[in-house]
Amino acid sequence: MSDTNILPADKLFLPQPIIDDAVLAALKEDLGRAGDITTLATIPADAHAKAVIAARDEGIISGIPMAESAFRQIGVWHGEAVSFTPMIADGTEVKAGDVVAEIYGPARLVLSAERIALNFMCHMSGVATATHKMVKLIKGTKAKVTGTRKTLPGLRAFEKYAVKCGGGSNHRFGLDDAILIKDNHIAVAGSITEAIRRSRDFAGHLVRVEVEVDTIEQLKEAIACKPDVIMLDNMGPEKLAEALALLEGTGIISEASGGVSPATIAAIAKTGVDYISAGYITHSAPNFDLGLDISVS
Amino acid sequence: MSDTNILPADKLFLPQPIIDDAVLAALKEDLGRAGDITTLATIPADAHAKAVIAARDEGIISGIPMAESAFRQIGVWHGEAVSFTPMIADGTEVKAGDVVAEIYGPARLVLSAERIALNFMCHMSGVATATHKMVKLIKGTKAKVTGTRKTLPGLRAFEKYAVKCGGGSNHRFGLDDAILIKDNHIAVAGSITEAIRRSRDFAGHLVRVEVEVDTIEQLKEAIACKPDVIMLDNMGPEKLAEALALLEGTGIISEASGGVSPATIAAIAKTGVDYISAGYITHSAPNFDLGLDISVS
Amino acid sequence: MSDTNILPADKLFLPQPIIDDAVLAALKEDLGRAGDITTLATIPADAHAKAVIAARDEGIISGIPMAESAFRQIGVWHGEAVSFTPMIADGTEVKAGDVVAEIYGPARLVLSAERIALNFMCHMSGVATATHKMVKLIKGTKAKVTGTRKTLPGLRAFEKYAVKCGGGSNHRFGLDDAILIKDNHIAVAGSITEAIRRSRDFAGHLVRVEVEVDTIEQLKEAIACKPDVIMLDNMGPEKLAEALALLEGTGIISEASGGVSPATIAAIAKTGVDYISAGYITHSAPNFDLGLDISVS
Amino acid sequence: MSDTNILPADKLFLPQPIIDDAVLAALKEDLGRAGDITTLATIPADAHAKAVIAARDEGIISGIPMAESAFRQIGVWHGEAVSFTPMIADGTEVKAGDVVAEIYGPARLVLSAERIALNFMCHMSGVATATHKMVKLIKGTKAKVTGTRKTLPGLRAFEKYAVKCGGGSNHRFGLDDAILIKDNHIAVAGSITEAIRRSRDFAGHLVRVEVEVDTIEQLKEAIACKPDVIMLDNMGPEKLAEALALLEGTGIISEASGGVSPATIAAIAKTGVDYISAGYITHSAPNFDLGLDISVS
Amino acid sequence: MSDTNILPADKLFLPQPIIDDAVLAALKEDLGRAGDITTLATIPADAHAKAVIAARDEGIISGIPMAESAFRQIGVWHGEAVSFTPMIADGTEVKAGDVVAEIYGPARLVLSAERIALNFMCHMSGVATATHKMVKLIKGTKAKVTGTRKTLPGLRAFEKYAVKCGGGSNHRFGLDDAILIKDNHIAVAGSITEAIRRSRDFAGHLVRVEVEVDTIEQLKEAIACKPDVIMLDNMGPEKLAEALALLEGTGIISEASGGVSPATIAAIAKTGVDYISAGYITHSAPNFDLGLDISVS
Amino acid sequence: MSDTNILPADKLFLPQPIIDDAVLAALKEDLGRAGDITTLATIPADAHAKAVIAARDEGIISGIPMAESAFRQIGVWHGEAVSFTPMIADGTEVKAGDVVAEIYGPARLVLSAERIALNFMCHMSGVATATHKMVKLIKGTKAKVTGTRKTLPGLRAFEKYAVKCGGGSNHRFGLDDAILIKDNHIAVAGSITEAIRRSRDFAGHLVRVEVEVDTIEQLKEAIACKPDVIMLDNMGPEKLAEALALLEGTGIISEASGGVSPATIAAIAKTGVDYISAGYITHSAPNFDLGLDISVS
Repeated sequence: MSDTNILPADKLFLPQPIIDDAVLAALKEDLGRAGDITTLATIPADAHAKAVIAARDEGIISGIPMAESAFRQIGVWHGEAVSFTPMIADGTEVKAGDVVAEIYGPARLVLSAERIALNFMCHMSGVATATHKMVKLIKGTKAKVTGTRKTLPGLRAFEKYAVKCGGGSNHRFGLDDAILIKDNHIAVAGSITEAIRRSRDFAGHLVRVEVEVDTIEQLKEAIACKPDVIMLDNMGPEKLAEALALLEGTGIISEASGGVSPATIAAIAKTGVDYISAGYITHSAPNFDLGLDISVS
Repeated sequence: MSDTNILPADKLFLPQPIIDDAVLAALKEDLGRAGDITTLATIPADAHAKAVIAARDEGIISGIPMAESAFRQIGVWHGEAVSFTPMIADGTEVKAGDVVAEIYGPARLVLSAERIALNFMCHMSGVATATHKMVKLIKGTKAKVTGTRKTLPGLRAFEKYAVKCGGGSNHRFGLDDAILIKDNHIAVAGSITEAIRRSRDFAGHLVRVEVEVDTIEQLKEAIACKPDVIMLDNMGPEKLAEALALLEGTGIISEASGGVSPATIAAIAKTGVDYISAGYITHSAPNFDLGLDISVS
Repeated sequence: MSDTNILPADKLFLPQPIIDDAVLAALKEDLGRAGDITTLATIPADAHAKAVIAARDEGIISGIPMAESAFRQIGVWHGEAVSFTPMIADGTEVKAGDVVAEIYGPARLVLSAERIALNFMCHMSGVATATHKMVKLIKGTKAKVTGTRKTLPGLRAFEKYAVKCGGGSNHRFGLDDAILIKDNHIAVAGSITEAIRRSRDFAGHLVRVEVEVDTIEQLKEAIACKPDVIMLDNMGPEKLAEALALLEGTGIISEASGGVSPATIAAIAKTGVDYISAGYITHSAPNFDLGLDISVS
Repeated sequence: MSDTNILPADKLFLPQPIIDDAVLAALKEDLGRAGDITTLATIPADAHAKAVIAARDEGIISGIPMAESAFRQIGVWHGEAVSFTPMIADGTEVKAGDVVAEIYGPARLVLSAERIALNFMCHMSGVATATHKMVKLIKGTKAKVTGTRKTLPGLRAFEKYAVKCGGGSNHRFGLDDAILIKDNHIAVAGSITEAIRRSRDFAGHLVRVEVEVDTIEQLKEAIACKPDVIMLDNMGPEKLAEALALLEGTGIISEASGGVSPATIAAIAKTGVDYISAGYITHSAPNFDLGLDISVS
Repeated sequence: MSDTNILPADKLFLPQPIIDDAVLAALKEDLGRAGDITTLATIPADAHAKAVIAARDEGIISGIPMAESAFRQIGVWHGEAVSFTPMIADGTEVKAGDVVAEIYGPARLVLSAERIALNFMCHMSGVATATHKMVKLIKGTKAKVTGTRKTLPGLRAFEKYAVKCGGGSNHRFGLDDAILIKDNHIAVAGSITEAIRRSRDFAGHLVRVEVEVDTIEQLKEAIACKPDVIMLDNMGPEKLAEALALLEGTGIISEASGGVSPATIAAIAKTGVDYISAGYITHSAPNFDLGLDISVS
Repeated sequence: MSDTNILPADKLFLPQPIIDDAVLAALKEDLGRAGDITTLATIPADAHAKAVIAARDEGIISGIPMAESAFRQIGVWHGEAVSFTPMIADGTEVKAGDVVAEIYGPARLVLSAERIALNFMCHMSGVATATHKMVKLIKGTKAKVTGTRKTLPGLRAFEKYAVKCGGGSNHRFGLDDAILIKDNHIAVAGSITEAIRRSRDFAGHLVRVEVEVDTIEQLKEAIACKPDVIMLDNMGPEKLAEALALLEGTGIISEASGGVSPATIAAIAKTGVDYISAGYITHSAPNFDLGLDISVS
């Protein structure tokens, strides 16, 4: 097992009710109106199971608190503890065969919560692993990988957390926690200058303002308005380098976006840009393969 | 635009409150406590926008009722209709550039709901497209592609629907609507025979019973118990063929699972199996690229 | 106390959150905005109560987990355990005077939760008892009594469970877990054959299909379509017998419905039908009389 | 059709969200995760249905606003009006064959909401009819029939309303809207006098205080404390008469409870008591038979 | 610290779920989607904090169960107890510097819940203190101070409770728990007599009826109808005295309202009126200053 | 009526579901289980009412969308429009007697929603008015008044909005949308430098960082770390001026806090500080007096 612990184990930032509510909703959706009828029919109430969650592939783990929540909640319902012991922390790099957690409790409860625990962990570890692949590709540069609002419905907070587990950084959580001025806003406001002026006027002093630019002309106008961040959209490495030269010494943070993929990210990062945002790591991350191996007695 | 309409337009089976509740939750999550502050700051209340949702790639569309819900709900909140006109039905095959829907309404509302509408459609069309690729690979056989319970948390109903849009069929929606006896259930019950007996005894007469078998020996035992469906797990095409020969004339439905991928599915289907189940089409389907092109006036 | 335990004690199939949510809603509805003002006014906080729930009549008990939930939840709220000790399991036959459960805890909490615990138990035991009366009337036949969707709003899961406690079996839990083709569906589809064809085409392979027939003509058409279950509606015993003769050896399950009452059920069962469904046992079951006898100190 | 309109049509007192929330919950429970799959499979989207809700028995109708809510809500979901036209008002007496309401709309929607609309109406009309039978038995006396808190979980507000439809009156809606001092409260408080004193001291001046007495001795003590209402529990007609003589001229309202049934109520009422409370009318009222006759085109 | 315990410590009448739900909602609103990012960034997970809640002013404490709920809930989420030890009971009079409660637990949890605990306590203690000031001004008279329905949205139950902590009494909790006939009701009904008649006819026998009068003429009409309570609105002390003389011996409770302030209440109370209602004590009570002093280790 | 429109009418930033959910909750709380029984008893269903909401004092109006929501929602429930016509926009200055809105609809609905509409408007207008008084006191300086997180439980979003209506600006909405490092964070982190370093490291690039300092020494350390904002806590005007001199030219925003009242704010503002934060304007703003004058026909 790797010792590269990417997200310090104590930095889980999601409020626990967000975790417990989502896990409960997923358990309820799966159990429906009549519960796990297969297990009720075939497994006696007093059978106990020992299980491990093990990696079937190489990557970064994310989602342990969600799995913990699934087994804890189903245990609480039945007044019988299901013990869940993580072997590693979220953000740890694993290889196939590594054991992620050990579980012990009534066999019915372990079997009924298994799929929900894995559905969270496999998706979140998928996001963390996809992020981490990007992070490794730009090692040695100062750039940080960041997600976007292109997240799966209802799973944004979980994917934001998984991105951090993979070594990435977070962009806005929603439309209300920072200003991001895009082409349509500029078009209607009349100019970058006017759009930023209106934004500063409207937002409180604890809100950052970012503006998206497509051209060097726009960039120059934007710099004069001193936003906190400028997004350089769909510029190739060369044009990016030209843009970054203009930004030098302004104190404005730079962010590259558009066309970011494993194939392109290294060249983008080498330009010296501060942040690189990619929808891919949240909306298209393939499932990370984890399995639950049970022995029932 | 292709005229291959895979799911008849009137077969949306999700209860509308399931759609509206999930879309509302996603809108609330995105708007947070203070709303779309960028748009509020920069776009006047009386500006109007015309927009189209267009495909950027080739595939199957799914999620139009969810996009409709997003624009309808945000319109209702503000007492101003946002018109949403689908150009095609869910289940239609499109190519890059095809227009999926037209939208017209207050620019603020169109911009604030855009991301949520797309997040649903891009994921669901991704699932439909991944399913459809499988379906095309087995054309000419009698096999049907079916999903599993390996779905993203909170999105199961939406992915089940998208699988149908892509020409697939649906497996269980949850643990309570059918019996599926797996290895652990068999191990504890003592035998396939006993597990099926207990299941028939416990379940009502409107519940189907499926049993998973790994070997020909198990299969023979299972056939004698007359379950509704037998899952043939992780058998290669040759062993599958052997199994299907035994199932011939029994009236029992056959389902292949394990190791199903675009690379293997054609060979599996040629054995004559009835159903092929694949987690891939729900948990790892890449985002289908759709964009919203706006003109604001 | 009888030792006839009809539902094995470990077969409670309702997911616990369904129980706890409904009990919590009932407690909240009763406590309103200002709580149990009589008890708060008259009973000191440190008074304790010992109580028993006792049967006042002869019948089958159902609802112990709901009573347990009521006393457990009100205890948790106040950080003071209310102990609840069942003397028997759900599904047990009792006679007047039998003690069902013992309770001990702060008198205020016992008094405030009493009515809700009893409201659940008296109704559910009423359903179980009504079911059991039917079951006893058809003893010696192979028929099983089953409920319908004619349940009291919001209480379907609880009544389905109570039916099993009384020795009955369960029909569909909702419109989505099995197909049941009735006269109106047949009329619009054009024929039984077409309705079943459409149903098989639409539903996944884990969904059973039942069709209702009123005549022998319809029955013959239905048999040819091989549904899983055929409902023989409103046929008298003679016509039923004729129908069952036609079904012999087809592997199709038979279900009689319509005009089922304690007066008619024995004759229906003697025809050899597999299942007999009755709305009466859920929608018209009289309350079973249970009381809570308290001594406060 | 009778013209005896018992509850004036405009006196529906339930806040509409209580109705709509309960009806929505019942619809969701019935439609589950996949909707009405039978109807979706067999009925085309453009088929329309005309239907009537008709009485199959003699009694009092209650629940029209709940049926209206079911058809209205399912119509709103699909953007297609389902028209619902009541022929009579709640509280009207009907005989078998009387048409209660007419319905017209998409056949799928009518069929999918049918059962929920009827489940509400059949139970509530059952409660109204059971109440009305009691009311007729005591015609000519000044007594009023009133329900209790022995209601089915989650249905209290609906049953309270149905009791009024049947010509009854309402007791407490919950533990918080009036004081009702029972034997256990008296036992702990030490005396009726002390229990009433504590109650008056605790409750605001908009709260009525009722006390339960079992004996003439207790009654005398109670009268001296001037509660608003005295419940005379389990006294036979003779003892009741003795009690009422003592209450004469005190301005205190009298209520008889215990052992109230159709067989006993007339004798109780003739004593001149003001109110007679009965759990039977809510917890054991048999279903009133209503049917929905559909013609689909 | 004063020993004037105004509300007996065991008389908290709010159902605990009302407390826990409101506190949970407030915690969620504050933690948002990403939690207390300042604390997560700067405070290690294993740091512990000791804290006291102390009064910064003189007044009456209210809200201890709400603060307890905040620290308890955040502890439960993280599986780590945050101990909360009240030093006094709600309803106690304190002076600046008095310690109200002691807290010990993980520093992150203490810091993250601090503001919500204080927001409840400072507002509720503000209401209790404002009420108590009124109560002291009318000491020696028989009048009681009571609140109104002019409460802050969502906080009615909490303010009703705080009014009792301050020595006041409670009026209606909502529109449904008592009848209060005002000028508009009288105008439409045609007369006081008719309005009271309709009210008695409609309401059950556990509901009190109050009527508002503005003139002596109205008062006389009202008295003849024997309502439970008469509200004497906007009468000066002299006219009030005249009104009370008419009410003498009728058994009807009197309530003065309108223009009630610290400047006027003593004169009103001296007239001998039973209750004096004031919106001021709930809708305009200034915050009571409490602070949380932390030492982290 | 004044034409000083402080918040442009189209800048309502609260997502509509936040408004509608809170208003619905308040209506439900007020209507309870049995509705507005006084109005139901006394007012016929076909009576209509015309009403105006009028100011009884001088100040700034806030809460019109909440009142609109109350009347709109109660109208929708009953299928009868209640028209609500605002005469002015939120943020308008009014004097006693000015009409704020006109209402017309069924008298029952107008009467039943009246109190909730006013409870929102009176509190929010109170906050706006208190804010505006501060704003007027610092006219001519560059300082802006801003609120804090010392808001009433459940009402934060509404009070933040009301502060803007009064001409103020908004601070953080919660713990998650900006970093605010206070004394306890600094104490545990070891130094201001380390606390800011950890914060920058943890937070994304769209998050602002503010640090609180009490002394000039601390200020110097803070300036070197380049936070976005520095809070100067509890410094008198003289020390504030000294601090601001050090901040000149750094690009760091200054905020004064502590001891801010109408008596002190002018002197604080004259120092040239950018923002002045005050808990008073949210937690202690007195109710603004608005009344609803009805004529029923």
